[in-house]
Amino acid sequence: MKICILGSGNVAHHIGKALLKAGHNIVQVYSRNKVTSKAVAKRCKANAIVDIQELITNADLYLLTVSDDAIEKVSKSIPFSLSQKQMIAHTAGSVSIEVLSSTGEHYGSFYPLQTFSKSRRLSFNKIPMCIHGSDDYIAKKMTSLAKTISSDVRQIDDETRKEIHLSAVLACNFVTHLIAESEVILADAGVDKSILAPLIQETIFKTISQGASEAQTGPARRGDNKVIKSHLEMLSDRPAIQKLYKQLSSSIKTLHDRQ
Amino acid sequence: MKICILGSGNVAHHIGKALLKAGHNIVQVYSRNKVTSKAVAKRCKANAIVDIQELITNADLYLLTVSDDAIEKVSKSIPFSLSQKQMIAHTAGSVSIEVLSSTGEHYGSFYPLQTFSKSRRLSFNKIPMCIHGSDDYIAKKMTSLAKTISSDVRQIDDETRKEIHLSAVLACNFVTHLIAESEVILADAGVDKSILAPLIQETIFKTISQGASEAQTGPARRGDNKVIKSHLEMLSDRPAIQKLYKQLSSSIKTLHDRQ
Repeated sequence: MKICILGSGNVAHHIGKALLKAGHNIVQVYSRNKVTSKAVAKRCKANAIVDIQELITNADLYLLTVSDDAIEKVSKSIPFSLSQKQMIAHTAGSVSIEVLSSTGEHYGSFYPLQTFSKSRRLSFNKIPMCIHGSDDYIAKKMTSLAKTISSDVRQIDDETRKEIHLSAVLACNFVTHLIAESEVILADAGVDKSILAPLIQETIFKTISQGASEAQTGPARRGDNKVIKSHLEMLSDRPAIQKLYKQLSSSIKTLHDRQ
Repeated sequence: MKICILGSGNVAHHIGKALLKAGHNIVQVYSRNKVTSKAVAKRCKANAIVDIQELITNADLYLLTVSDDAIEKVSKSIPFSLSQKQMIAHTAGSVSIEVLSSTGEHYGSFYPLQTFSKSRRLSFNKIPMCIHGSDDYIAKKMTSLAKTISSDVRQIDDETRKEIHLSAVLACNFVTHLIAESEVILADAGVDKSILAPLIQETIFKTISQGASEAQTGPARRGDNKVIKSHLEMLSDRPAIQKLYKQLSSSIKTLHDRQ
């Protein structure tokens, strides 16, 4: 497939490489940022353009990897209308495909459920690809495209994709943050954060293999109020984290009482 | 070493096996629960006892794996005083070794920084073992003992161990809970929780290799208020989780503004 990538962030960096590796032709990478557009373009053997007026008119797919807020604006700045056979899609979790409806007939989403950083190597093969299209034509085409880079391709509509994205924020962004706060506590205690690595790994292995509810341990799960009280006292000079500790402990209790 | 284990929960289950495998002699496993004491005793080729009066008087070490709240009470119910060469230790994160001070001269902690479930196989070798003793004698003896089951043995005093335990609650128990809540969201959306596995794994690999602060992504980190607002609306019928979402997002912002 002949593809133009719009955007040059973490998603473009990884998805461009995966599409190239799968044999697709990445023709152009567009971004107003010259440095990053060049870097991503080099990575997927494409041309870098910084002016959207230079976008070629005959790509099969225009893939928007820009930030959620920019999707609609960038798509509307494309200086031509897409033809009957052309497609446009975005890679965002929480944006309806309808923001692309004015650009042409076939629009959709091509959402990889993963956290991307440029410095991390990633194999796309196991990444769930969530596909949604404005019609059967694009849904089929995007499904075939997704299958060339991943073995886990799913039809997920706008509303469900948003729920998945919300769950991903909890299970990825908020998890990372709790570990960041635990690293602050360790640093203040003069302990290297590496001490937590085996615990964190086992926590995740257990959570994935047993399900999180079954894998839950700790003072809140056991109702060990003495430990909870002692931890809250230790956090007395960090009121924000103390509040989080209280709320998460009470939330654990609520979830397990419910079950 | 000749060891009596008091308690028959998850920690006894794993630590007993590890000590046996390292060549130690687990003589008895004491617990008022006949079923679990028998199960743990069988696992580490020991005798199960349900009456503390039957505790042998000549073990080198009495290892308390009971719940935090029970440590002091169980230690005080030992029907004899420990001799000059005998030792007693607990495996708890947040309990001072001083609760054991009345039982004999040498008391300490033998704290494995890990989450234990009976149904999970675990290799002890990489588990950080935190050792603290009332004097050099027990500190040295417990260090040698810990080295027979783990390659990561550390001298960690009461206060530091409590900070480590607090950080572990954040990085393990609270992480598990956030994943549990994300699984609830997925279940309500009709999506199998397995869709999150690659994301969760990559989150953790990235967090461990880069440090959590560096690995942070997501709407709160980017300041993407439109997505945050949309997620909060989606959580309007789950006020507790909505409150958590708000607080965690604001906490991410605060931590990154501070750095």
